[in-house]
Amino acid sequence: MTDQELDPQKAEKTRQVFIVSDGTAITAETLAHSILTQFPDLHYHQTRIPFVDTMEKAIDTARRINAVEKEDGLRPIIFTTFVEPEIMRSFNEMVSGHIIDLFRKFVGPLETELGMKSAHSIGQTHRIRDDEKYQRRIAAIDYTLQHDDGQTNRGLDDADVILVGVSRSGKTPTSLFLAMQFGIKVANYPLIPEDFDRGSLPEALLPLRNKLFGLSIAPERLSEIRNERRPGSRYASIENCRMEIRDAEELMHREGIRWLNSTTKSIEEISATIMSELGLDRQRKA
Amino acid sequence: MTDQELDPQKAEKTRQVFIVSDGTAITAETLAHSILTQFPDLHYHQTRIPFVDTMEKAIDTARRINAVEKEDGLRPIIFTTFVEPEIMRSFNEMVSGHIIDLFRKFVGPLETELGMKSAHSIGQTHRIRDDEKYQRRIAAIDYTLQHDDGQTNRGLDDADVILVGVSRSGKTPTSLFLAMQFGIKVANYPLIPEDFDRGSLPEALLPLRNKLFGLSIAPERLSEIRNERRPGSRYASIENCRMEIRDAEELMHREGIRWLNSTTKSIEEISATIMSELGLDRQRKA
Repeated sequence: MTDQELDPQKAEKTRQVFIVSDGTAITAETLAHSILTQFPDLHYHQTRIPFVDTMEKAIDTARRINAVEKEDGLRPIIFTTFVEPEIMRSFNEMVSGHIIDLFRKFVGPLETELGMKSAHSIGQTHRIRDDEKYQRRIAAIDYTLQHDDGQTNRGLDDADVILVGVSRSGKTPTSLFLAMQFGIKVANYPLIPEDFDRGSLPEALLPLRNKLFGLSIAPERLSEIRNERRPGSRYASIENCRMEIRDAEELMHREGIRWLNSTTKSIEEISATIMSELGLDRQRKA
Repeated sequence: MTDQELDPQKAEKTRQVFIVSDGTAITAETLAHSILTQFPDLHYHQTRIPFVDTMEKAIDTARRINAVEKEDGLRPIIFTTFVEPEIMRSFNEMVSGHIIDLFRKFVGPLETELGMKSAHSIGQTHRIRDDEKYQRRIAAIDYTLQHDDGQTNRGLDDADVILVGVSRSGKTPTSLFLAMQFGIKVANYPLIPEDFDRGSLPEALLPLRNKLFGLSIAPERLSEIRNERRPGSRYASIENCRMEIRDAEELMHREGIRWLNSTTKSIEEISATIMSELGLDRQRKA
């Protein structure tokens, strides 16, 4: 696209963005956010409309969006992930806007590629809950909460991953995300001054070295985070943070533990890196 | 598609599925899973390949997938979410398979619709981390952990949502998911026999009624879950579970608390329902 084709009038006003699904619309929202981030100058107002799983709701939702368009004078952007084709068809016929179909568009070509028909039933993804996977996930969250911050060594060898790092380096949110997203059991264990003085890992971790992954962080950032929790403390001081980080990185290096610096990374990025480094990115669905 | 067009030969073998991204590939994986769930008879083996963010990595990844195809004799299914168009182009030119582009395909039409150019820089979504949003999310997770299971009443009025329900009705995983996904502060509070005997909500919750949301669950399922934790206990017995659930539902009904039955729902479905019921589905991006 050239500059000449761009219409500056269009760019000024706040756009209405709708994310419509017969399911939760959560995945659609995340992907929509990634796509919209490609337009850093865009001002928008976003509304998620989940569980549009009957004809009536589809028609109501289309009317609701059309009313907004009428008042607004600008075409709304509508992201959809309808599993049920009939409901999507009704919605598409009624609604006025720029539709981005994140789901159904891919199912037809896949039918041809796979030589299979797709199941059209509403919300098959979630409705018929995969109970085994669900229970594994709940068990992983339970395990991860019980093994947060080195609370217990009992069952530590059941962990898929054990995160280590100084206090407030991001271990807990990462552990919980890994458990929630991937259903793996994650323990996390703080590295504390006693470990640095002794110059070795906590004893409980020694036989589990292959499950260890370290998190480090820039001392300046660590100091900021700790100051929110304990303002003005020695614990939060930049000198102490520098010393702890230096000692922790030295220890991890000496012990041959893989680690990353979490300073500028999102929880998702940290988690995806850990999964990748530990070779946990494959799974089979029979 | 008609039955005649389906090729039964194609359907038998295990398909290789790759999810390739210059970011974490986490959203792509979730959406790919939803799409593939439409093919309940498909056997597949899935590999997520994140952080393919250089030409070299794109070419390596394409070669790796092509080698699998050659050995396998079946076209792999490749889901992609490349932010950077040049890397995607290199990858697409090299790779052989059925490509499902969950990202770039939508950016071009959006440029026209919005009258804006998109930012092509790699991983803009995550690279330039939205620090305010990130910190809100971390604070929400911290808050939610501190206010799990009625641990403290301090700061309870800062909660965006307070979940109530009997022990093991799903409050903790739901609270953590809400905090993680939406960056909202969630407290959760158990309803215990003392509350039923007294016939009213815990006192701390009375002024916060508009933030309350209840979780209930089928007594049979509750008994199963509790039996995993404390096998054969009175706590886990079906009689006790029936009584607690009956009392809890009566209490919630009497107090006018919105609630849902979590028995057959995923954490995402429960969370999306709560967000929707409490009117938290809108947000503005300026």
